[in-house]
Amino acid sequence: MKALLVVAHGSRRSQSNTEIQALTQRIAEEAGEDFDLVECAFLELADPLIPAGLKSLAGKGAKSIRVLPYFLAAGTHVASDIPSEVDKGKAELADVDIEILPYLGTHPELPSILLSLARSVNNPG
Amino acid sequence: MKALLVVAHGSRRSQSNTEIQALTQRIAEEAGEDFDLVECAFLELADPLIPAGLKSLAGKGAKSIRVLPYFLAAGTHVASDIPSEVDKGKAELADVDIEILPYLGTHPELPSILLSLARSVNNPG
Repeated sequence: MKALLVVAHGSRRSQSNTEIQALTQRIAEEAGEDFDLVECAFLELADPLIPAGLKSLAGKGAKSIRVLPYFLAAGTHVASDIPSEVDKGKAELADVDIEILPYLGTHPELPSILLSLARSVNNPG
Repeated sequence: MKALLVVAHGSRRSQSNTEIQALTQRIAEEAGEDFDLVECAFLELADPLIPAGLKSLAGKGAKSIRVLPYFLAAGTHVASDIPSEVDKGKAELADVDIEILPYLGTHPELPSILLSLARSVNNPG
């Protein structure tokens, strides 16, 4: 089974973490045959943390897990912290193929997405 | 003149701030007639900060400025910190119409964008 783990920063505001869970649910609904399982995990401040998220997916039968950093810029979190947390999970899951995908901020359509957001509000109707 | 100010968090890694500047440049190129000026500013850790970013646009003739939070979740930064910094800028620019747009994380196409990123790597070619 193929799994996708959406990794967000995590917040002290529970509303913010609930948003990530809702987003993950929408991704799961759209994933089709590409990913049998889609769950989320947090770098800090909210559960599950990344190692627990990887373990959860492996426990449900995932043989490959792709980790998608829901981050916009290549700051320390993307460059160091997420790889370090993923390595902790890997150490306990030797038989699962785990890889980190490019982070959201690398997506070539982001400028268009941002403009469409600005236009929809700037020119209502 | 209509202006768009893209507001990112800011990072100690200059590479991360450079990414935001490059993104802003791409948005400016795509903006067409919707925005005559597109610049970026940072909440912290990098220049220009938000009040300076607003002032820069006003200095170039902007009569309306839309502030686009380049943030994914409604954490404290989006809920409190950005409005507070924008208010500081507003206090000095009484004749400019300044409004904060919805943050990126509210965009309805984000789940599709994330899936397309995951698919492109998961199934190369």
